Amino acid sequence: MKLNTKYILPLVIISITACNNQKMESTKQQNQPVFPKGEKVISENFTGNVWLNYLSETDTIHNVNIGSVTFEPGARTNWHYHKGGQILLVTEGKGLYQEKGKPIEIINKGDVMKCQPNVEHWHGATSTEAMTHIAIGTNTNIGGAIWLQPITDKEYDKLKPIFQLNYFKYTSH
Amino acid sequence: MKLNTKYILPLVIISITACNNQKMESTKQQNQPVFPKGEKVISENFTGNVWLNYLSETDTIHNVNIGSVTFEPGARTNWHYHKGGQILLVTEGKGLYQEKGKPIEIINKGDVMKCQPNVEHWHGATSTEAMTHIAIGTNTNIGGAIWLQPITDKEYDKLKPIFQLNYFKYTSH
Repeated sequence: MKLNTKYILPLVIISITACNNQKMESTKQQNQPVFPKGEKVISENFTGNVWLNYLSETDTIHNVNIGSVTFEPGARTNWHYHKGGQILLVTEGKGLYQEKGKPIEIINKGDVMKCQPNVEHWHGATSTEAMTHIAIGTNTNIGGAIWLQPITDKEYDKLKPIFQLNYFKYTSH
Repeated sequence: MKLNTKYILPLVIISITACNNQKMESTKQQNQPVFPKGEKVISENFTGNVWLNYLSETDTIHNVNIGSVTFEPGARTNWHYHKGGQILLVTEGKGLYQEKGKPIEIINKGDVMKCQPNVEHWHGATSTEAMTHIAIGTNTNIGGAIWLQPITDKEYDKLKPIFQLNYFKYTSH
């Protein structure tokens, strides 16, 4: 059987377009975060682009505060500690977490990090991938975060060989 | 130009298969929950199929416990209350939340519900859609959940006309 290309070509173009549209729609849905990323953080306690959606401000009844925090690639907190502790639930992407005197850890969607009260630490994105976590500040009646010095670009850049090895995961807990 | 179908057909089949495989892969990624759904809950405090992934068991330092709870369609908690309160973060699907003496609320991915200490309430899925929430039990030093009577099938079935109206949302907070 012979077919004329004037019938075949439009069909092929329609098929390819339909497939691509479906892929675009799929990608859009995949990329929908659980919580909107909120407002851009303007603070000297962070480096790079960080977004915060307060899911629950501190209330004296529940004694916690909850925020969804998104770090764009390269963004990170300063060193800091929490008088009442904090728990991080990673909801998107791949990031970094480090406690003072311990090796850096690669953290991924689904990971849970417990920051003990008064333990200095920092967290953020890798240089190539964004990371979102829910941050639950606990025992807020005791007090909030105490902010310290930033992770300089020079310090952060030194870490790249570590977190560019995707398969490598330090674990200290 | 004329083309022989023996050349065209394999190409069309390959294109369609490639597109479908991409869609399947996309759908798989879309459906990947933030946290694995964990273990099936075997308890008389729930009706239907409920799954629990403990993200953080109670610890005396942070004074909270955290679990990701998935309710299959039709599944729900019994009436209960928390001595220390609870905060729910809806991460997937559409569900139901009701406090004693108040109208039922439809809750969706992205919603945050604060359950005040000692206020009787129940939560769960609609009859047609699963719902997953992160449940943060607060002030766990005061005590955990106190479980009461179930929502019977008769009571739950009566609610269907409410939550089948997708556009309708009661709000009491």
